[in-house]
Amino acid sequence: MSEQHEKIAIPARHGKAALIERGQHVKVINTHGTQVVDCWALNADNMGEFMSMEHCRVAWERIGPSEGDIMVTNRRRPILKIIEDSASCVHDTLLAACDRYRYEQLGCMEYHRNCADNFWEALVEIGMKPIELPSPFNLWQNTPVESGGVIKPNPPVAQRGDYIVFRAEMDLVICFSACPQDVTSICANKPRNAHFEIS
Amino acid sequence: MSEQHEKIAIPARHGKAALIERGQHVKVINTHGTQVVDCWALNADNMGEFMSMEHCRVAWERIGPSEGDIMVTNRRRPILKIIEDSASCVHDTLLAACDRYRYEQLGCMEYHRNCADNFWEALVEIGMKPIELPSPFNLWQNTPVESGGVIKPNPPVAQRGDYIVFRAEMDLVICFSACPQDVTSICANKPRNAHFEIS
Repeated sequence: MSEQHEKIAIPARHGKAALIERGQHVKVINTHGTQVVDCWALNADNMGEFMSMEHCRVAWERIGPSEGDIMVTNRRRPILKIIEDSASCVHDTLLAACDRYRYEQLGCMEYHRNCADNFWEALVEIGMKPIELPSPFNLWQNTPVESGGVIKPNPPVAQRGDYIVFRAEMDLVICFSACPQDVTSICANKPRNAHFEIS
Repeated sequence: MSEQHEKIAIPARHGKAALIERGQHVKVINTHGTQVVDCWALNADNMGEFMSMEHCRVAWERIGPSEGDIMVTNRRRPILKIIEDSASCVHDTLLAACDRYRYEQLGCMEYHRNCADNFWEALVEIGMKPIELPSPFNLWQNTPVESGGVIKPNPPVAQRGDYIVFRAEMDLVICFSACPQDVTSICANKPRNAHFEIS
């Protein structure tokens, strides 16, 4: 992939969605290295079928993927394949997208942008009407399962420019949210933008 | 709770749902000790709000609950509290309900009963129309996260008569499925019935 591809911004605290054809590649770039990017993929022809973390974990027999692994849908069909991952799969499959309720519980007195609303907003922006909010694939979210099953919102360990390349296994809609989390440290307390390229 | 309460059967390979008022207790009994029971809870007044494993894990900061923990909804509100658990919380929050696609992949040539369809069937039976299939709380499913994040479908470790008692934190619909899994060993390869009591 030596040719130049258009870099599409995922603006800080916002979502961005795009249509991807089967066989195309999507490279997601952690431009500043500190950004968690929530990721969803839905069957372009059926919004009721989407990448599902709980079905992926059954397919992998692991809590998270490795390079070469295939993400599956709630119908257990391949939707994305992880072709390359510069960050050795430090990602999260276990935790819900942040939402207005989460920020209320974290003490925010006013509306706080959040990944759940970004999902709906970004999909509506390209004319899609999802049926439900799937559990996200949280790229670069450093929340491993520790001793005793503990999960903590740790600061990021990704590096500037880390990237992951997916191949679309069906015609799909991909959706990203540059996580607006600035109360816990998972985005180093400073939400920033990220980018992706389609090729 | 010394008084006698009606034992309601969850027939082997089938689902069963019931309305529960806030403050009532539900005792789920692993009658034969070898049965995985998928469990869901939904807000009785809003089928779009339901117990959500990915939101529970955020609330607990752990992959699974302990006695006294509260199960929350996708709006992060309390829905069930674990009052007592004779099996020390050997349950699963990570894996999808089995479905027709799972059994096709496991080699079944004909329709195989499954927890996903049991969810819809049991709720329709009591006049409820859920919007989506939430990820289940898999009671007594022995699929811990092992070294390297590995998850395997192990045989059950529960004992005959093991039980878990929940208290309803809102008016809710509870749904159980006596898992029809007989291809892997999670139900000791022999699906059996289970029971619950409301008090």
